[in-house]
Amino acid sequence: MGASEPRRHEGSAGVPATQRAAVLHSARDVRISSRPVPTPAADEVLVRVTAVGVCGSDVHFFHDGRLGDWRVEDPLVLGHESGGVIVAVGDDVDPARVGERVTIEPQHPSPTSAETLRGEYNLDPEMRFYAVPGTDGAFQEFVTIQSHFAFAIPDSVSDEAAALMEPLSVAIATARKAAIQPGSRVLIAGAGPIGILSAQVARAFGATEVIVSDLAESRRQSALSFGASRAIDPAQGELDELRGTLDAFIDASGAAPAVRSGLLTVRPGGRVVLVGMGIDELPLPISHIQNNELIITGVFRYANTWPAAIALVADGRVDLDRMVTGRFGLDRVADALESTADPTTIKSIVTPNS
Amino acid sequence: MGASEPRRHEGSAGVPATQRAAVLHSARDVRISSRPVPTPAADEVLVRVTAVGVCGSDVHFFHDGRLGDWRVEDPLVLGHESGGVIVAVGDDVDPARVGERVTIEPQHPSPTSAETLRGEYNLDPEMRFYAVPGTDGAFQEFVTIQSHFAFAIPDSVSDEAAALMEPLSVAIATARKAAIQPGSRVLIAGAGPIGILSAQVARAFGATEVIVSDLAESRRQSALSFGASRAIDPAQGELDELRGTLDAFIDASGAAPAVRSGLLTVRPGGRVVLVGMGIDELPLPISHIQNNELIITGVFRYANTWPAAIALVADGRVDLDRMVTGRFGLDRVADALESTADPTTIKSIVTPNS
Amino acid sequence: MGASEPRRHEGSAGVPATQRAAVLHSARDVRISSRPVPTPAADEVLVRVTAVGVCGSDVHFFHDGRLGDWRVEDPLVLGHESGGVIVAVGDDVDPARVGERVTIEPQHPSPTSAETLRGEYNLDPEMRFYAVPGTDGAFQEFVTIQSHFAFAIPDSVSDEAAALMEPLSVAIATARKAAIQPGSRVLIAGAGPIGILSAQVARAFGATEVIVSDLAESRRQSALSFGASRAIDPAQGELDELRGTLDAFIDASGAAPAVRSGLLTVRPGGRVVLVGMGIDELPLPISHIQNNELIITGVFRYANTWPAAIALVADGRVDLDRMVTGRFGLDRVADALESTADPTTIKSIVTPNS
Amino acid sequence: MGASEPRRHEGSAGVPATQRAAVLHSARDVRISSRPVPTPAADEVLVRVTAVGVCGSDVHFFHDGRLGDWRVEDPLVLGHESGGVIVAVGDDVDPARVGERVTIEPQHPSPTSAETLRGEYNLDPEMRFYAVPGTDGAFQEFVTIQSHFAFAIPDSVSDEAAALMEPLSVAIATARKAAIQPGSRVLIAGAGPIGILSAQVARAFGATEVIVSDLAESRRQSALSFGASRAIDPAQGELDELRGTLDAFIDASGAAPAVRSGLLTVRPGGRVVLVGMGIDELPLPISHIQNNELIITGVFRYANTWPAAIALVADGRVDLDRMVTGRFGLDRVADALESTADPTTIKSIVTPNS
Repeated sequence: MGASEPRRHEGSAGVPATQRAAVLHSARDVRISSRPVPTPAADEVLVRVTAVGVCGSDVHFFHDGRLGDWRVEDPLVLGHESGGVIVAVGDDVDPARVGERVTIEPQHPSPTSAETLRGEYNLDPEMRFYAVPGTDGAFQEFVTIQSHFAFAIPDSVSDEAAALMEPLSVAIATARKAAIQPGSRVLIAGAGPIGILSAQVARAFGATEVIVSDLAESRRQSALSFGASRAIDPAQGELDELRGTLDAFIDASGAAPAVRSGLLTVRPGGRVVLVGMGIDELPLPISHIQNNELIITGVFRYANTWPAAIALVADGRVDLDRMVTGRFGLDRVADALESTADPTTIKSIVTPNS
Repeated sequence: MGASEPRRHEGSAGVPATQRAAVLHSARDVRISSRPVPTPAADEVLVRVTAVGVCGSDVHFFHDGRLGDWRVEDPLVLGHESGGVIVAVGDDVDPARVGERVTIEPQHPSPTSAETLRGEYNLDPEMRFYAVPGTDGAFQEFVTIQSHFAFAIPDSVSDEAAALMEPLSVAIATARKAAIQPGSRVLIAGAGPIGILSAQVARAFGATEVIVSDLAESRRQSALSFGASRAIDPAQGELDELRGTLDAFIDASGAAPAVRSGLLTVRPGGRVVLVGMGIDELPLPISHIQNNELIITGVFRYANTWPAAIALVADGRVDLDRMVTGRFGLDRVADALESTADPTTIKSIVTPNS
Repeated sequence: MGASEPRRHEGSAGVPATQRAAVLHSARDVRISSRPVPTPAADEVLVRVTAVGVCGSDVHFFHDGRLGDWRVEDPLVLGHESGGVIVAVGDDVDPARVGERVTIEPQHPSPTSAETLRGEYNLDPEMRFYAVPGTDGAFQEFVTIQSHFAFAIPDSVSDEAAALMEPLSVAIATARKAAIQPGSRVLIAGAGPIGILSAQVARAFGATEVIVSDLAESRRQSALSFGASRAIDPAQGELDELRGTLDAFIDASGAAPAVRSGLLTVRPGGRVVLVGMGIDELPLPISHIQNNELIITGVFRYANTWPAAIALVADGRVDLDRMVTGRFGLDRVADALESTADPTTIKSIVTPNS
Repeated sequence: MGASEPRRHEGSAGVPATQRAAVLHSARDVRISSRPVPTPAADEVLVRVTAVGVCGSDVHFFHDGRLGDWRVEDPLVLGHESGGVIVAVGDDVDPARVGERVTIEPQHPSPTSAETLRGEYNLDPEMRFYAVPGTDGAFQEFVTIQSHFAFAIPDSVSDEAAALMEPLSVAIATARKAAIQPGSRVLIAGAGPIGILSAQVARAFGATEVIVSDLAESRRQSALSFGASRAIDPAQGELDELRGTLDAFIDASGAAPAVRSGLLTVRPGGRVVLVGMGIDELPLPISHIQNNELIITGVFRYANTWPAAIALVADGRVDLDRMVTGRFGLDRVADALESTADPTTIKSIVTPNS
């Protein structure tokens, strides 16, 4: 993440001195700029970006110029779901890595925080993260990342799948917190990208009943095509029949009614994992949570998920390629961001070097 | 719990055929009745009750004739914190147990539910529990309980301590869910009986910082005398300084503002355990929970706590005797129940056989 | 398990008063006897047995008249992998269960032991278990079992699969102890029935690399056909290349050299689970275990596995039917027991009512 | 750990350019040398060493010139239990730390290994560790360490206690692996420093029965004085009575008979943690481990223990000061190393700057 102190790149064959970047200046104002290609720090690699997924958080920054407490005050490059090819390495990195196809874990935690030291580096309070104000993301031709967070992928994994290892990692972190295991019965609210990935991952964790709820028929069909064992319309009362029977509920909708109804489907001692963003505050049924000793938590990114993500995709357990519904060049980043409003969109991909 | 189908007791030396029981007929209507002494079922023992603690749930039933969804529709004997002496045993129980001083785990789960089979028998939906409508409690001279839930106590443990193993078990279950360990820093809201026991238990689990908050100065002093390392007035803003620093927050107050302010003191990845009763629904800061991956849960009674409770008291790690602030004969059960309104009361004890 | 005190059965339509049973009198002496059909106790069901798998422990009892510390001193009916149809129920069981196709969890723990109360009922020291001296097994036409341990199976699950839920449960218990999760890399030594089931189950738990080692080429091929990602001959030195790289090692061979070489393949902090029987004592590399903080444990049957087992089979994640390589009527129990010596045998099935 | 590339120190007030170090050249050959005081790297601090504990591993290197696979081929400074005062800081460290009294966690893991990323940095294969060939230890006047591994101590903690946080950390790591909790019953074999610390720590974790076995009467008395609830002579058969009853067994003896007899005292599902060094290979009772599902593991140093260690000492839960039985200046390092052979020695301390 040399982006914070970009230095001119010199010399690597085929690496230009400048690059094109899609820069967000304020809400809805994205412009292509020419910027220096950064030089990787000693422990970093420089990656030519082949594909970048569009995430809901990118869309929030684009529409509102802010997300939660973060505000876009200086120009910011969005995009944190990315993969590419290593084109240069820092002084401490094996030069043999040049040419490697990689998927990027877009975080840079402090190595010395209490959180990092106990293996929860995603919770490090000093984290720098792609496309969060202060650190540029991947809607540009080249990015840097610490070498160990650029994971090699096998030939069988596509460039687009490399990019989508990031949301897959969110789903893996979610499934771990939900304690999904063989035979688990789980409800997932919301059949957007995270919901669909959570359904696929729940299956990979051995869940034998994966129920997805969504108000939109088309999204329910999509969920079924990606491995949900059942898709239900939450408006039709089917959730009532599930009351107290499921091992886990994953909210991937960020919708208050979904959380409240979903929570009631969980059996005594079961888990509720909130991954969908957008709810600031919500009344929860405390006495119900107590009487059933429900365990409720949220997901903030991920730690130690990439090896599993790559293995699941390489092994054919999770299908990322079929989730791609649109592709956009760097000039069309705004279109890519707008595309997520289309209900037929699952995942839009930006290809900065196409 | 032969109480549900009481049979006349015959023959054990010193066991009368009838006993006196304090029976709640409706809100605030407690009367002493003469009732048959039950005969223990094959796997049960008959216990002459020496001491019974008064719990907040007893007080709720007494004042309101209900607690949550439970309503007193038929006459009910309250009291579920009890100990005594075994005076008779069922056919399958070793007769040598007669004469044993015991503390009673007042539950009777189904042995075949999924919850029981996985070791969470407190969550068994078919549970019968002392002093919950359908099953009489211990404000009477004699009770029955399954033999394995009448735990022998050493001579060094008093009758009153035997009774108070029950709320101590709640505190142990709470500390386990809060993942308290040596070096933990924990906030406990509320310096009532459960708060004080939670403070003592947190120390026994190795916590080195045990902060108790309470609005009442007298209760803060009480908490300090029972091992809290610090007592704070939540109205004085000291909680703000703790924001995001503690390993766990235990709510033993059942007060909405305490839960909301306490939750914010927990570090990323830390635990929030809600044991205080009385909040039906409460707005919680979902995005804060997500961003910090807080783990929130509640406590519903306990499982597998009695051996630890007895060992901690016998070992002098937890002091139950000093928590007793009042003693009442069976005729004065109503006074005992009223006594909890007095701020100087920590624990009131009913002595059915005095 | 009314078998220990069989009572004459009376009256259920279609249930005879006597049955045929294959009884082991001493090593290699199995005889068909006529015995009373037991009457189920109040909490039991009576099952007409459709299929029984032959287990290595049955073979040990048959050949040696003993297994570990257990000795066949009184006549014993072998067979503990069984399923069938409920034909009668005890007084406390819903009569509507008559006619249900079930798979049997063949254990009867004490409901009140410390082990059972904490959810580890398989470790209950007072356990009664099918086909262990003192309790008859399922090589007979009818057996009794507690109602909650006769699990209903859907129509899609065959009689033989119902029987093989038992060894599948061993494999599930093993995978849990090995902490297999998505992306795990695991070595399984031995491609016998438990090895093959462990390979299938490891896949169901999300393992992406499942390496099976066996000296026999035919068994290696078998493992590959059941989902192993790689099969290796331990004599060929391939294990050396894996040194310190795998997340878990499961020994399903019971062979000392396999344990010693397999243990070395595990990464720091990884798991070693010993499920294969037959090693009484073995020199282990203590300093290696210490320096790598390996976690070593064994598997003794299972607890809380049947619902997952049924779900995995019903969902097509585990294939039990294809593991059946031979079928034998009750008259041929000795042949069934001898058949396990044939290297082409995976699982032999006895059909007591055919 | 700038020791690997020592640079001349310049300028900090009071920090000399050279220092005295006790250097091991080969077995039993320790000489005082003059060496440059290292300059701390950017993320390091320079510490003037006040006290260093003598560990059994130091003694092994001293007597044999080797320990396990490590050999002293180049001159090596021993000593890894240390504390002192920060006298200079690297470029990235807050200068306000100068003057701080600290205890040193003497390891330097790679921040990017899989082990470190999941919170098990002690298992990092690229670890550099004080007093292991390749990295000098603390038997010298000044050492460097990464800033976050120099932990501030309160005034109430002595210099010697600061040094002994290291073996205390071993005992904390051991108790965590042994899953000690309130009410636990545990056997500890060996009443040397680690055994005594394990006994103290087991109490701090809430164990109510802490049995220490040792062949020497004087060491049994010592264990009792440090909190053991019972001390037994393993030669007297008392272990037999404990068979299968304890929650955990900790071997701090490194003696094969102790491991074999101690393992048998553990209840079904209990833990065996091997922390005592010196056993390369040992026959273990595999079928007993399997039938009881014992969980066996070892301890290799520690991770994330220092905050708990400091808190326990500051809180008076663990007494390190009373364990110090001898003090030696730098000139007497050899005497300090020899002193461990004296049975009355618990902990010998070297004071490099006295």
